[in-house]
Amino acid sequence: MCRWAAYRGEPLYLEELVSSPAHSLIAQSHCATRATTATNGDGFGIAWYGDHPEPGRYRDILPAWSDCNLKSIARQIRSPLFLAHVRAATGGGTRRDNCHPFTHGRWSFMHNGQVGHFDALRRPMEAMLDDELYSQRQGTTDSELLFLMALQFGLDRDPIGAVGETIAFVERLAGHLGQEVLVRFTAAFSDGETLYAIRYASDWRAPTLYAAPMGPSGGYCLVSEPLDDDHNAWVEIPDGTAVIVSENGVDVRLFSPGEPAEPARTQQV
Amino acid sequence: MCRWAAYRGEPLYLEELVSSPAHSLIAQSHCATRATTATNGDGFGIAWYGDHPEPGRYRDILPAWSDCNLKSIARQIRSPLFLAHVRAATGGGTRRDNCHPFTHGRWSFMHNGQVGHFDALRRPMEAMLDDELYSQRQGTTDSELLFLMALQFGLDRDPIGAVGETIAFVERLAGHLGQEVLVRFTAAFSDGETLYAIRYASDWRAPTLYAAPMGPSGGYCLVSEPLDDDHNAWVEIPDGTAVIVSENGVDVRLFSPGEPAEPARTQQV
Amino acid sequence: MCRWAAYRGEPLYLEELVSSPAHSLIAQSHCATRATTATNGDGFGIAWYGDHPEPGRYRDILPAWSDCNLKSIARQIRSPLFLAHVRAATGGGTRRDNCHPFTHGRWSFMHNGQVGHFDALRRPMEAMLDDELYSQRQGTTDSELLFLMALQFGLDRDPIGAVGETIAFVERLAGHLGQEVLVRFTAAFSDGETLYAIRYASDWRAPTLYAAPMGPSGGYCLVSEPLDDDHNAWVEIPDGTAVIVSENGVDVRLFSPGEPAEPARTQQV
Amino acid sequence: MCRWAAYRGEPLYLEELVSSPAHSLIAQSHCATRATTATNGDGFGIAWYGDHPEPGRYRDILPAWSDCNLKSIARQIRSPLFLAHVRAATGGGTRRDNCHPFTHGRWSFMHNGQVGHFDALRRPMEAMLDDELYSQRQGTTDSELLFLMALQFGLDRDPIGAVGETIAFVERLAGHLGQEVLVRFTAAFSDGETLYAIRYASDWRAPTLYAAPMGPSGGYCLVSEPLDDDHNAWVEIPDGTAVIVSENGVDVRLFSPGEPAEPARTQQV
Repeated sequence: MCRWAAYRGEPLYLEELVSSPAHSLIAQSHCATRATTATNGDGFGIAWYGDHPEPGRYRDILPAWSDCNLKSIARQIRSPLFLAHVRAATGGGTRRDNCHPFTHGRWSFMHNGQVGHFDALRRPMEAMLDDELYSQRQGTTDSELLFLMALQFGLDRDPIGAVGETIAFVERLAGHLGQEVLVRFTAAFSDGETLYAIRYASDWRAPTLYAAPMGPSGGYCLVSEPLDDDHNAWVEIPDGTAVIVSENGVDVRLFSPGEPAEPARTQQV
Repeated sequence: MCRWAAYRGEPLYLEELVSSPAHSLIAQSHCATRATTATNGDGFGIAWYGDHPEPGRYRDILPAWSDCNLKSIARQIRSPLFLAHVRAATGGGTRRDNCHPFTHGRWSFMHNGQVGHFDALRRPMEAMLDDELYSQRQGTTDSELLFLMALQFGLDRDPIGAVGETIAFVERLAGHLGQEVLVRFTAAFSDGETLYAIRYASDWRAPTLYAAPMGPSGGYCLVSEPLDDDHNAWVEIPDGTAVIVSENGVDVRLFSPGEPAEPARTQQV
Repeated sequence: MCRWAAYRGEPLYLEELVSSPAHSLIAQSHCATRATTATNGDGFGIAWYGDHPEPGRYRDILPAWSDCNLKSIARQIRSPLFLAHVRAATGGGTRRDNCHPFTHGRWSFMHNGQVGHFDALRRPMEAMLDDELYSQRQGTTDSELLFLMALQFGLDRDPIGAVGETIAFVERLAGHLGQEVLVRFTAAFSDGETLYAIRYASDWRAPTLYAAPMGPSGGYCLVSEPLDDDHNAWVEIPDGTAVIVSENGVDVRLFSPGEPAEPARTQQV
Repeated sequence: MCRWAAYRGEPLYLEELVSSPAHSLIAQSHCATRATTATNGDGFGIAWYGDHPEPGRYRDILPAWSDCNLKSIARQIRSPLFLAHVRAATGGGTRRDNCHPFTHGRWSFMHNGQVGHFDALRRPMEAMLDDELYSQRQGTTDSELLFLMALQFGLDRDPIGAVGETIAFVERLAGHLGQEVLVRFTAAFSDGETLYAIRYASDWRAPTLYAAPMGPSGGYCLVSEPLDDDHNAWVEIPDGTAVIVSENGVDVRLFSPGEPAEPARTQQV
């Protein structure tokens, strides 16, 4: 079970979410308390938006808590929008190409969850990609492939809809192939302007997703698990939900795969 | 341009070819003299046959000359049949999964050369693989894919023929797609019993291949470039040739892709 | 808290202790159950004796469970005497030079425990080393330094005595400097002939040590924690004990630092 | 022989010196033309000044040209003052702790050159350090040790003088110990405000040092070798010279170890 955190708001030093001693992703990954997998030692990654449309990225396969580079980079870089991920491998070897966040152009993407029976579905899923996206495939994870499929299905035009279509495609594919239908998907992704997150599972057992206000003014943080014990601060986002953090604040919408996106019910988390 | 060495004969410590100070693959990789690419710092790998049918393997992405593990392992392990490779990346990122030798069951394979316009050919080449071999694809190199295709085309039944069919397929594919037809292929591979090598190029400009007797008694060494300056000891194997080192000695045959293997003209190199 | 296993007996494939799926050091390190530190993801190492007097060694900083090289090497190499270690860093950065086992000539050494207030003691401890051993210092751990001091104090002549003198020196040094006297030391070491282990702590709270017969005939395994749940098979070695596994079987002796080694009370564990 | 580049001026993206395709440190390191050592594949590092007094740092042991993280970081980060180094190991193993730049508080330091007979001088050099600096020693290189000694000798108060005293100390030490006196030292260092460089060698054979204006307005770049073939743009700094790049422009002074710093002869390079 991986862990991740994403932020959008006034520029914040990455270290505040990534590597601060008490309540950060690294502290969590070294001493997991809520997760069923005890350790998150299979690599990490950060993607942040700065002066360029495409994000910067730093990934490595060491345990996050051992990496001096990560600490130094997270201390120096301040960004209004970033994603950070700590990996516990469930499939795909330990190597940089399998570490989240994945990026493509201005998009970044990270994921916690799984595609059931991915071994049987991998090839027809890859076959869906057009040549350009197929050639971008670097690793072997289900997560990277879900991201490439979402790009194929129009992430640029309709981000939530494209992810919904991706998940629906995978679920139908599993059904056609006589496999158990199981997609668990708690993901965050961004185009550098807006931060999106989705919590969904075919079996209603999606990895958790929480949100809280953070940073100097009007910022929001989305996390796979609360970063500290102040449980009042964190709102759990239920299964079947999409969260959109933009300059207009936070939208929370019902999410179900394959359907047109629900009209927004703007609300404050 | 990569470098490699392969040995079959009485058990030899790997270090004699891999890491000895004067005349070894590591010495070569650090201070290349003949090759057009000055450096070979993009990883290395060794595969050796011991007590099990399948080979042991050690690969890493450090420059070979920096790796203390490699020195220690090469000093301890003695094997009657092994392959060693130092990589200069021409395509595919620097990561372990892209380092030679590649292995599958009892087979090991390493390659120096290239498939021209691989970006355009990669997808239809991967499409040729059956599901089991497709799922074995870990990296992004042309070399690994040539190996998987050779397995598909019967490496177990007719090793030289299967490689020939692979190359012929790729050449025809390039032609059909209107691409320049270019496969340069100087490779060694083994099933743990016999050591095979092929030097071939569509344009008759294949990377070099040399052979020399080596080791206590009746052993042979095949290398991409001579390991020392005793040029009398090394025989250059010409373009369009297959070499088969078995318990019966050395066979050298004409090789051309897609044709049935030539009847053997057994001869001593 | 690190974990380790050591074996002496009929040649055994390393994988039986290192990487077998159910009951091995790697299985333990990924899913620690008894240890107070939840994870062991800061590197690993193996040292084994083969044809040469000095051991082979393979160390890396990845989590042991992610390392394909380790699995392959452990599957191929069979040895009558080897040490294997999985690290949870308590001091010293995550890097190869800080990974156990440490080696020097024919000696290998690995350690679980700590020197209290090592920051204050490091420099005078290093000052004890003669120039040759001082120049061998590669890393920053207390463990490597304890090993170099034991070499200084005569590991070659009287292994148990030299380790006793080392610990006594450190305890006295801490006292002189007004520091709390605390050495916790559960270590295994070997010269390639005999396997030694010591469990000792200034405060009688040494990391655990267990022994069990293992392997085809007359072999013994020493471990920091039992490798499986068959608790009848594993005998706990009490604090203040030295264990000597040689061709004569197993000796278990009282151990206290700085005293001449006790006369042997040979007994079967 | 290592290579490095340092910049002070209007904020510049690191990639312009570090990783741009044509004329950068990475291009140089992959295809060295002037250096006597053909390859620079033993790691790299960057240190840059941003919002904090202490620099950020990213180091790794891969060849610089293989590191996707470096490319991404160098593309995102813009800094008014930074140091970049590509390593060809002459001593000290390949590991992060041996990669330049070294940092301490707000200081950063990188070096090209060597201390002759360092094996014999290392211990008395380390013995000069006070306890706090001694405990900061992480690696085994002469370069890191020269930096720690310069800190000891007052880098904060008189940067050029402290480096002069360090070199003089090492030269005298070598003489006292009956060793050949040889320090070759082409280094750059900074406190985040001013960029310093020194070219000096006991035998007047110091590694080269060049300077050129660079960046939007009034910036300067110091390099171990010209980054491009426009030789008119680069001024060679002679042996026995210190260069000081500050908000007041560029000072070039005579430098000789152990003497009080020369009065400045301010001039435009």
